[in-house]
Amino acid sequence: MSDFLSDHGVLVAVVCALLAVVYGVVTTRQLLALSPGNEVMQRLSAAVQEGAQAYLRRQYTTIGIVGVVLFVALLFLQDIEVAIGFAVGGLLSAAAGFIGMNVSVRSNARVAEAARGGIGPALNVAFRGGAVTGMLVVGLALLGVAGYYGILTWGFDVETDEAVDALVGLGFGGSLISVFARLGGGIFTKGADVGADIVGKIEAGIPEDDPRNPAVIADNVGDNVGDCAGMAADLFETYAVTAVAVMLLGALQFEGNTDVVLYPLLLGGVSIIGSIIGTYAVRGDNVERALYLGLIVAGIISAILIYPITAWLMDDLGDISSTDVYLCALIGLAVTAALFVITDYYTSTRFNPVRSTARASVTGHATNIIQGLAQGLQATAAPALVIVLGIWGASELAGTFGVGIAVMAQLSLCGVIVALDAFGPITDNAGGIAEMANMPEEVRNITDPLDAVGNTTKAVTKGYAIGSAALAALVLFAAFKIELQRELGVDNVTFSLDDPLVLMGLIVGGLMVCLFAALSMEAVGRAGSAVVEEVRRQFREKPGIMDGTEEPEYGQCVDIVTRAAQREMIIPSLIPIVFTLIVGLLSYEMLGGLLIGVIVVGLFFAVMMTSGGGAWDNAKKLIEDGEFGGKGSDAHAASVTGDTVGDPFKDTAGPAINPMIKVANIVALLIIPLIA
Amino acid sequence: MSDFLSDHGVLVAVVCALLAVVYGVVTTRQLLALSPGNEVMQRLSAAVQEGAQAYLRRQYTTIGIVGVVLFVALLFLQDIEVAIGFAVGGLLSAAAGFIGMNVSVRSNARVAEAARGGIGPALNVAFRGGAVTGMLVVGLALLGVAGYYGILTWGFDVETDEAVDALVGLGFGGSLISVFARLGGGIFTKGADVGADIVGKIEAGIPEDDPRNPAVIADNVGDNVGDCAGMAADLFETYAVTAVAVMLLGALQFEGNTDVVLYPLLLGGVSIIGSIIGTYAVRGDNVERALYLGLIVAGIISAILIYPITAWLMDDLGDISSTDVYLCALIGLAVTAALFVITDYYTSTRFNPVRSTARASVTGHATNIIQGLAQGLQATAAPALVIVLGIWGASELAGTFGVGIAVMAQLSLCGVIVALDAFGPITDNAGGIAEMANMPEEVRNITDPLDAVGNTTKAVTKGYAIGSAALAALVLFAAFKIELQRELGVDNVTFSLDDPLVLMGLIVGGLMVCLFAALSMEAVGRAGSAVVEEVRRQFREKPGIMDGTEEPEYGQCVDIVTRAAQREMIIPSLIPIVFTLIVGLLSYEMLGGLLIGVIVVGLFFAVMMTSGGGAWDNAKKLIEDGEFGGKGSDAHAASVTGDTVGDPFKDTAGPAINPMIKVANIVALLIIPLIA
Repeated sequence: MSDFLSDHGVLVAVVCALLAVVYGVVTTRQLLALSPGNEVMQRLSAAVQEGAQAYLRRQYTTIGIVGVVLFVALLFLQDIEVAIGFAVGGLLSAAAGFIGMNVSVRSNARVAEAARGGIGPALNVAFRGGAVTGMLVVGLALLGVAGYYGILTWGFDVETDEAVDALVGLGFGGSLISVFARLGGGIFTKGADVGADIVGKIEAGIPEDDPRNPAVIADNVGDNVGDCAGMAADLFETYAVTAVAVMLLGALQFEGNTDVVLYPLLLGGVSIIGSIIGTYAVRGDNVERALYLGLIVAGIISAILIYPITAWLMDDLGDISSTDVYLCALIGLAVTAALFVITDYYTSTRFNPVRSTARASVTGHATNIIQGLAQGLQATAAPALVIVLGIWGASELAGTFGVGIAVMAQLSLCGVIVALDAFGPITDNAGGIAEMANMPEEVRNITDPLDAVGNTTKAVTKGYAIGSAALAALVLFAAFKIELQRELGVDNVTFSLDDPLVLMGLIVGGLMVCLFAALSMEAVGRAGSAVVEEVRRQFREKPGIMDGTEEPEYGQCVDIVTRAAQREMIIPSLIPIVFTLIVGLLSYEMLGGLLIGVIVVGLFFAVMMTSGGGAWDNAKKLIEDGEFGGKGSDAHAASVTGDTVGDPFKDTAGPAINPMIKVANIVALLIIPLIA
Repeated sequence: MSDFLSDHGVLVAVVCALLAVVYGVVTTRQLLALSPGNEVMQRLSAAVQEGAQAYLRRQYTTIGIVGVVLFVALLFLQDIEVAIGFAVGGLLSAAAGFIGMNVSVRSNARVAEAARGGIGPALNVAFRGGAVTGMLVVGLALLGVAGYYGILTWGFDVETDEAVDALVGLGFGGSLISVFARLGGGIFTKGADVGADIVGKIEAGIPEDDPRNPAVIADNVGDNVGDCAGMAADLFETYAVTAVAVMLLGALQFEGNTDVVLYPLLLGGVSIIGSIIGTYAVRGDNVERALYLGLIVAGIISAILIYPITAWLMDDLGDISSTDVYLCALIGLAVTAALFVITDYYTSTRFNPVRSTARASVTGHATNIIQGLAQGLQATAAPALVIVLGIWGASELAGTFGVGIAVMAQLSLCGVIVALDAFGPITDNAGGIAEMANMPEEVRNITDPLDAVGNTTKAVTKGYAIGSAALAALVLFAAFKIELQRELGVDNVTFSLDDPLVLMGLIVGGLMVCLFAALSMEAVGRAGSAVVEEVRRQFREKPGIMDGTEEPEYGQCVDIVTRAAQREMIIPSLIPIVFTLIVGLLSYEMLGGLLIGVIVVGLFFAVMMTSGGGAWDNAKKLIEDGEFGGKGSDAHAASVTGDTVGDPFKDTAGPAINPMIKVANIVALLIIPLIA
């Protein structure tokens, strides 16, 4: 069996990846067979679909231009294999986002329709809609990495080393799409959301998702392009880059051992099987219990399947036994579980952080904001400790390679985690459609609590993504160091904390995170203001909108945020590329510091922003459910402020830090020929 | 002259330090000779004095208990010289805060009285009141460091090395007072401020500083114990610790060269002369111009005086020429100037960051908060770049020792900078007294713009303190490394970024910053809530307060925040001690990572919080001056929210990060015997 895997491991991984794709196709067909609801619902859903597709087309066109420039740069800087890998990574990431989003915008009305039958059926449809995205993300990512590696090594007889180097290009392609998609999508979704809320809820006093609000379709489109397509691109790149980083580190550290390179692919492959089984465990009326159960089942089955793979492939690593490697994988799964539980604690309506934020709303806007910020800051401590313990355990067992195995195992559950996340925007949209189509109150009473759980699972995915991003970036850094040494022809490059250049790099890395976050938050503000002005204009020029005699021009708002997002995403996206390049040209010690600075500072800001944002959002939900004064109270108004502040935190700046960290680290790998 | 300085340098430094103390005494007498205003004003001022003294007595009692425990610990861990140094540092820091605050609470009514004569006289009194604190801070700090060093080396014939080690204890004493004073004072001032604002301005609709508000005296006391005494303790420790760190690094790096140890003392000494002259340049009706001019004069005179000192003492450092050292000192002065200009840009009402935050208030609470946070994040970039350039320049010229010289030069202007800061709470108080004593509208029209400038100078001091803290901590880290090597008996300890332990340490360091900030912000929330309840109780039980027939019980509110501040400051203050100790016992590589992690992550959070907070505060001022809708508009309400959120940011959590960074670094130095 061990020999079979050594010879055919790539094939096995590709088959597992294809299984995920098949799961996606089959589930999509099942979903499309469900009733999309009445004509009004279908019309609304179609409007959202149209807006979302128009946005993504435009976004991919913009990214395409940047992509062509970088493709040519890679051709000169590296070689044709890397450049093609870059294109493959970008295209597959775009495909995962595009297909997943298309399923998502078709599931929304179906969830609203299913909600007539109770929470169980609604959860079933919503979760399966999300699972399509989840499985496509891991499936296409693994297909890309394993497939391209297979084609290069089998089809073109490229050496293992070179093939892995070409995969770095693939990772870069994924990262590039990811940072643009996270930012562009984040600016779109929150620009529309903030704008719609300010004029609609606060100025005109109409409820959320009221069809009289001209920005309402843009808001619903935003859920899909930001929370679905953007998130899919993010996790695609996290998965692909991690796999590549671990393969690269393995190839560099254990030269000539191809099993080490195959192992991450197979680890990912068998976990897909575990994840698919896990999705079938999500059922019943208790939403949080069902979701937890799905994750637990996926984790346990994956853990069982990883054991033989490890025993067969990892028995020849010198000091490191296959048991050590297996324990590292278990550490990765444990880190995932721990991050899940911690983020749930900090963002779920059941626990004190959200409750205390809701309670603070009673004394006004300011205390709500202070408490949310304090909770966000506090929410960084436990995940940081978990990551520290994970690094410690894995590196004691198997050094930095062990950390790589742990993070690969952590990401192996990506399919289920993304499913948990992607069901959020679907239910959010379903609630919007229910509201706009004047469906009975009960439907909204089903979709609202689903949406609240969705806020928590969204925060969980972000915590998971940033946690794994930090670990993956450490692996990339280790690979960077080894590659650099090789290129310089020296034995030991050190990045010592008392080297002023390293310190300068650390500070520049932190600066990049803050600047990136600042620019993306301001971009949301500008996009939101543009929406506010447009909505005010429509209310002014079409007085019939408010009494229902005139139809708002939804398309105008969609168009405005589309253009704003395109324009605003460019500058921040260039930060991780340009700063890294310039610093790299100045000094490689400083570059080393920069890479770690981005990771360390980025970790804290990203977790603070995503957890704080989730807490604000759910504090509002808690108040809307009747606690601390209920809807319409002063506390409710304060909680809306908190939610609005949380929007660019948790859906734009915070999650975009994650791909930004990795873009910086990958660019560093790719520019080694220039700087050494 | 060179020989004279080598032999009598300590004496010269002590004489300069005494000059600063004399300046303080003379200026205090001049101030006390001014009219303290009518009887009502005197009564109000006395109430503030009483509250402030009661608070400080209680705070120092609490710190005293912790101090005795640490004194005994130092006796066992180190030796009697270090323990006594610790006591000296603590006592002098407390004295600087106590005396400065007592002058401050006596100047407030005198400024209000002087404001009857226009802005020039008011500025004159307020600035001189602040200058007393400023000169006492540098004077007592230099007196402590130079005096204790002189006593040990002359009086007890202690070797230079050991004497400098004992000074580390002195630095620790200052740091301990500082972290408690910043936190306790910060919790007091902002608990009172937030509480007073929420019930007074928002619920009861009475203006700020209205005598009917039972929390109004507590609020004014807070300005003094937080912004004056807390800030004085902070800068005292920054100054003392930096001097000690540079002396220590010099002693370790250039063994046997006592001139290197004397140089920082003399650099500080001659700059005191420059600073005193600079204070006399502050005059005229254009407040910002006058303050800038004072700083420029102090900087230029100091730069001139530093030259001969450097040429005489620093001519024997091997590769490093005295010109190199002098250029390092100029770099330090340039960094100060740059940080001053940058913070001014981000927090002054004249420039875009504050204006855009004010403009964002027009669309509501949430956009005000988003814009303020974005500005705070963005405000970190330029200072970080300045620090990076400063490190680069100084270390190119003279290695890490050069960085030390640069920070020492940067801090040499501390006297003027503190004066600029301390005039803020005095004018704030003067405005309060004018309001409460029903003084004519014109007085308030003088004190309000002075107060706005005070907000900017407060932010500038914090930016300066945190910038120098980051650099000083780097010097401490270098000293830590050399001491550790000596204790371990090895040649080269490396803290390499690819060592998992170092990485874990970096993350733990970041975690400490976030946890510290979270806990201190929550503490303000709790203290504020307690005030809100007390004020509501008084309004309820004494209905005559609102129509002026009953007197509020001001003392109750003072007492409540006093107790809250004492209780709440303990846990966060222990973070830098306990985490550092535990991590140090686990692994010294991890401890190295922790120290740098605290610095890097702390730098960004501290600047974000202090600049963001300053921008919110002045955005409110801008609106109150009539722009974007003016007082009473919705924009004004939104800007009050931003100001309230900014309070714990800029006056509690943000500035307290600064001493926290240094406590961690000094504790690391002191526990070397335990961990090596």
